[in-house]
Amino acid sequence: MFENKETTKLSSYGEFGLIDLLTKNIKIKRTSTLKGIGDDAAVLDLTRGKTVVTTDLLVEGVHFDMMFTPLKHLGYKSIVVNLSDVYAMNATPSQVTVSIAVSSRYTVDALEELYAGMLLACKNYHVDLVGGDTTSSASGLVISVTAIGTANQKDLVYRNGAQNRDLLCVSGDLGGAYLGLQVLEREKAVFKENPEIQPDLSGYDYVVERQLKPEARKDVIEMLKELHIKPTSMIDISDGLASEVIHLCKQSKVGCKLFEDRIPIDHNTHKACEEFNLNPSTAALNGGEDYELLFTIQPKDYDKIKGHTEIYPIGHITDVEGKYDLIPTNGESVQLTAQGWNAFGGAE
Amino acid sequence: MFENKETTKLSSYGEFGLIDLLTKNIKIKRTSTLKGIGDDAAVLDLTRGKTVVTTDLLVEGVHFDMMFTPLKHLGYKSIVVNLSDVYAMNATPSQVTVSIAVSSRYTVDALEELYAGMLLACKNYHVDLVGGDTTSSASGLVISVTAIGTANQKDLVYRNGAQNRDLLCVSGDLGGAYLGLQVLEREKAVFKENPEIQPDLSGYDYVVERQLKPEARKDVIEMLKELHIKPTSMIDISDGLASEVIHLCKQSKVGCKLFEDRIPIDHNTHKACEEFNLNPSTAALNGGEDYELLFTIQPKDYDKIKGHTEIYPIGHITDVEGKYDLIPTNGESVQLTAQGWNAFGGAE
Repeated sequence: MFENKETTKLSSYGEFGLIDLLTKNIKIKRTSTLKGIGDDAAVLDLTRGKTVVTTDLLVEGVHFDMMFTPLKHLGYKSIVVNLSDVYAMNATPSQVTVSIAVSSRYTVDALEELYAGMLLACKNYHVDLVGGDTTSSASGLVISVTAIGTANQKDLVYRNGAQNRDLLCVSGDLGGAYLGLQVLEREKAVFKENPEIQPDLSGYDYVVERQLKPEARKDVIEMLKELHIKPTSMIDISDGLASEVIHLCKQSKVGCKLFEDRIPIDHNTHKACEEFNLNPSTAALNGGEDYELLFTIQPKDYDKIKGHTEIYPIGHITDVEGKYDLIPTNGESVQLTAQGWNAFGGAE
Repeated sequence: MFENKETTKLSSYGEFGLIDLLTKNIKIKRTSTLKGIGDDAAVLDLTRGKTVVTTDLLVEGVHFDMMFTPLKHLGYKSIVVNLSDVYAMNATPSQVTVSIAVSSRYTVDALEELYAGMLLACKNYHVDLVGGDTTSSASGLVISVTAIGTANQKDLVYRNGAQNRDLLCVSGDLGGAYLGLQVLEREKAVFKENPEIQPDLSGYDYVVERQLKPEARKDVIEMLKELHIKPTSMIDISDGLASEVIHLCKQSKVGCKLFEDRIPIDHNTHKACEEFNLNPSTAALNGGEDYELLFTIQPKDYDKIKGHTEIYPIGHITDVEGKYDLIPTNGESVQLTAQGWNAFGGAE
């Protein structure tokens, strides 16, 4: 009590290093726990089917900036990012719980807006909000959401099932959410400089919406079922493509070749990249927050997705464990590194 | 965007009023949701048995003070308070998820201590920690725990089952946690005045432990099963006896008579009350954080608990809805009011 000792700084760990460290002594003991920490969601044997549970914490000043985040959008997004994890298990979300800690500078109306967004997401994705906790905070807003979903055991898709020669695919397009953030940050800076100038977001609708109101790829999961494709591995893209590709390969104990010119990037994202003098591939690889799905499929399934407008093969799996090759449009292959978002500002 | 309007202040709502307001538009839509918001835990039909899910948020400076809260104890308590909610459904907890947001002033060692406490609680209560999220915060520590448990449908106990003439019972003893907090606050004040003086907690072990390291009443749930008693209603005592009695009666649409001299209070709590010039009954009724169980049983079950050392009848249910009588040791009956802890500092 009341003591203070010199100890290891948090910033010397990356987010994943810290999680590894903190969870290394956890031992699964109940037979009903099929999968604990280490995937997009935990899998519990609570039924004839299986239950998945996932949780995410959104913190003001870290995950969102109240200067440019409408509360309704924030509520919507806070649900969607959790559902995205459930879909990434190839499961169907059914319930969420929501806890919020909020400082006294928030009004009741503000919280109603927040909940309106949450309930809209619940409605759109057919999930029930079944519990939670509401409390005060010393500063700012913290949102904690837990999502529960179900799947037949045979349908569950983990991060560790990728095999040599499997095709690496992504849904939708990448990098947009990051460019949306750049636009919002720029307008915030302009506003701070001169509050008379109204923010100008015209022409940036697409990328701004990608940042503020992402959707979870329920439709892609449904498409895959219709196409009779069960991915061999899957993860949602929250930290950036590079980081997720590495997660998936590491857990599957494989390598990959990723072709830069195959990464799907929307023309609006391209346009914004030009303006901000950013490399579109870098935005896609390291930007994060796109909430698309990254997955691998067996080579025999290629014909089923060929030319699909929402599913893009971007490379393939190799048996060279730990070797993640990015093949640029012109030039030599380079090693992929994860430069995704790091909550603690340390080395990843 | 960028607008600021005059709106209702958060502080004008109590915690429960705010929850009511925020959740009033929630509609349960899935047949698998048997009980959403409104009890200690949500009940989901995911299995042949039933699944319960509950979640709690602990915020630094609101729920705990780092000046006198050892992190290991905090970790332990953060799990226990959630398990307490699962037991209050007469269910058995099986898994928890844990999310933390933490400022950079925390060290890795500190977080390891926190997790050590969490894992100890998980071990003691036979639950698996199956997921979570770790992120940074602008200031302080926020802990969000979700607990999942199971029960046969016939064993589940809700808040709304109390009937006229049922006996109102509590487990253990009350008020201790509040006195523990008084002791810790006093020593903190002494320390701030003069950091040379070491805090003196001798003689206060019991109440300090009640505050810092509460236990969930797994044993009481097991005892009730052994005694073949199924409570007609149940709730855990986190906000104070008065507040919980009112919750239970309101949801059961009944009234009650509560006898002041029957409220179990430990002699250590009595002793500390004398020293702090506090009324022991007030501490028990309004102190909170005891994590004991409040429940009702049918009159026919009275003989089974008569003289039990962990279960105390403190009154009975009446059919006068909304009338909550506290019968003092000497004097006229008074109406019970909830003066429990209010997260937003407004009227309850």
